[in-house]
Amino acid sequence: MKFNIALLAGDGIGPEVINEAVKVSDAIAKKFNHEINWTPALTGACAIDAVGVPYPDETHEICMAADAVLFGAIGHPKYDNDPSAPVRPEQGLLLMRKKLGLFANVRPTFTFPSLIDNSPLKRERIEGTDLIFLRELTGGIYFGEKGRKDDGETAFDTCTYTRAEVKRLAKKGFELAMTRSKKLCCVDKANVLETSRLWRETVQAMEKEYPEVTVSYEFVDAVAMRLVQWPNSYDVLITENLFGDILTDEASVISGSMGLMPSASVGEHTSLYEPIHGSYPQATGLNIANPLATVLSAAMMFEDAFGLKEEAEAIRAVVNKSLEQGIVTEDLAGKDAKAYKTSEVGDWLVANL
Amino acid sequence: MKFNIALLAGDGIGPEVINEAVKVSDAIAKKFNHEINWTPALTGACAIDAVGVPYPDETHEICMAADAVLFGAIGHPKYDNDPSAPVRPEQGLLLMRKKLGLFANVRPTFTFPSLIDNSPLKRERIEGTDLIFLRELTGGIYFGEKGRKDDGETAFDTCTYTRAEVKRLAKKGFELAMTRSKKLCCVDKANVLETSRLWRETVQAMEKEYPEVTVSYEFVDAVAMRLVQWPNSYDVLITENLFGDILTDEASVISGSMGLMPSASVGEHTSLYEPIHGSYPQATGLNIANPLATVLSAAMMFEDAFGLKEEAEAIRAVVNKSLEQGIVTEDLAGKDAKAYKTSEVGDWLVANL
Ligand SMILES: CC(C)[C@H](C(=O)O)[C@@H](O)C(=O)O
Ligand SMILES: CC(C)[C@H](C(=O)O)[C@@H](O)C(=O)O
Repeated sequence: MKFNIALLAGDGIGPEVINEAVKVSDAIAKKFNHEINWTPALTGACAIDAVGVPYPDETHEICMAADAVLFGAIGHPKYDNDPSAPVRPEQGLLLMRKKLGLFANVRPTFTFPSLIDNSPLKRERIEGTDLIFLRELTGGIYFGEKGRKDDGETAFDTCTYTRAEVKRLAKKGFELAMTRSKKLCCVDKANVLETSRLWRETVQAMEKEYPEVTVSYEFVDAVAMRLVQWPNSYDVLITENLFGDILTDEASVISGSMGLMPSASVGEHTSLYEPIHGSYPQATGLNIANPLATVLSAAMMFEDAFGLKEEAEAIRAVVNKSLEQGIVTEDLAGKDAKAYKTSEVGDWLVANL
Repeated sequence: MKFNIALLAGDGIGPEVINEAVKVSDAIAKKFNHEINWTPALTGACAIDAVGVPYPDETHEICMAADAVLFGAIGHPKYDNDPSAPVRPEQGLLLMRKKLGLFANVRPTFTFPSLIDNSPLKRERIEGTDLIFLRELTGGIYFGEKGRKDDGETAFDTCTYTRAEVKRLAKKGFELAMTRSKKLCCVDKANVLETSRLWRETVQAMEKEYPEVTVSYEFVDAVAMRLVQWPNSYDVLITENLFGDILTDEASVISGSMGLMPSASVGEHTSLYEPIHGSYPQATGLNIANPLATVLSAAMMFEDAFGLKEEAEAIRAVVNKSLEQGIVTEDLAGKDAKAYKTSEVGDWLVANL
């Protein structure tokens, strides 16, 4: 098969981790007789520096024309202390999500046996955790009307959802639950918010189409607690944009393997794969960043975007092997163990595929 | 001294835990020569059952006339599965907060040496944690305009804040920080929300009035992570209503002592003290609920509402003693240890004051 992949390396360590994912993807393609055509494009702070906007039209066209998008990370400290700056890297991210119609962010949290002791949680709490959040990504308070009134003394943000928006996200949740343990948790704040009541009634109405799926409804504050107490009691969770932002980040640290967690954003026009970690500016250029989350994001891309399960499994297998053999960057290396460079990990993966 | 305290026992285990806090408070009052006049009033599901509304006017008048309010818990399972029911216990809670002007919810999270192994977190992660959230409690998306459009197909909620609302909450945060380690963290989502940008610029403008306080600004998703990773890196945190709802609940479980965490809500007209746990319906009437969070809430009341530090310390000391000696309810009792009844714990506290 032949694929066109848009390559958005972004800022900070983005280019370094993307580089290793490209090496591994190319090696897999070669092994399985596929051809990948990579098209790099600018986004984030580096796009602002180059052309003045964080998500240039040209980048958008490249993404629209591609079979999938592989994304690194964006964000630069020079924008960090001024969230009201007129142009910011995050705006590029939000615009990209909206324009590409990436309405569902798929965020798994799972554990690696060899890394379980990195978790801040006790072993018996985290063992066996294997959950997936589906976060709505193009609606809610992120994209509602916002502004100032009363000479700037009053600020407002509007959270809006339509039944159709809830339905298409929930549909993905039910479908995903059907491929797993048939347990779906709808996270909302229906005791306070009207949008949450719309979420809940919409999901409730869909239950009869999926009679095998057991649906539970939990308030966001309760989920924030149980994620720390009994993360392994969850399977598939669906939620709106802002709750998803908070809870998926909370979930990402409990496994102790944040540097390994991949994600996908899927939707109307294409799909995008990215590590959940950020641009980690302090590590930029040092060749020390952990490339595995990006490599595993590429695996998700092979499986979900191209339907190539065997290729994806081959990538996951070699990643597992690298972990078992301690071929890891400094964030995962034990106290007295050797820490490998970003590129060395990538080279090892390619050599051992 | 002489005090009038409104006593809102509420639902579920509320009356049982309140009962023990009253016993302990009366004993302290006797010992230190104070006189407490308790006035019980209805709120929550029991108020709906009795008079049709969850926060009756009569209850409001009793609270307004009191020097402080001691509150148990509200909520009943018969309302749990229908968040759109026309009358719900939570509405009483929100109305009470609003009408009493309780704009600042003070939620400490700290550890008890003898309970540290109950935490889902590893000992080295949780040890030394002693943080306080100030959650804004009468504004934001909880109280903004909400409703439906397009024949019910679209729902919306509005988050609104005025500079004055942010200022009065932040002022309490700065003042609290001055009595502690002079570290203040402002939690927002200023990279996305206009209300968060108002929060941030308002707090930034106040920094010069408190030159000794070091202020940090963190995004809510980052805080959701660090609370699990390094809770002991925080001291005083301020945040808006919804973020506070999620993060204070997350924080409450990390200590492993949720059944012991007290809270206060302070503001314009009076102040209210309550355990952070809920109404725990399954345990209602069984005399097994842990009364210590309510007893410690009474201690907060003595110290903060009445300025009686010695009395508060005496309560805390006897609670510590009960923990050390294992005079605890079943939630805290070790596998082979005796579990005391709710009322037995209260009796023991009174006898050992
Ligand atoms: C950078 C920010 C706008 C973004 C979000 O809040 O969605 C990020 O936190 C994320 O989760 O991808
Ligand atoms: C019951 C609910 C309305 C309430 C809230 O969200 O404020 C509760 O979760 C709390 O934190 O006191």
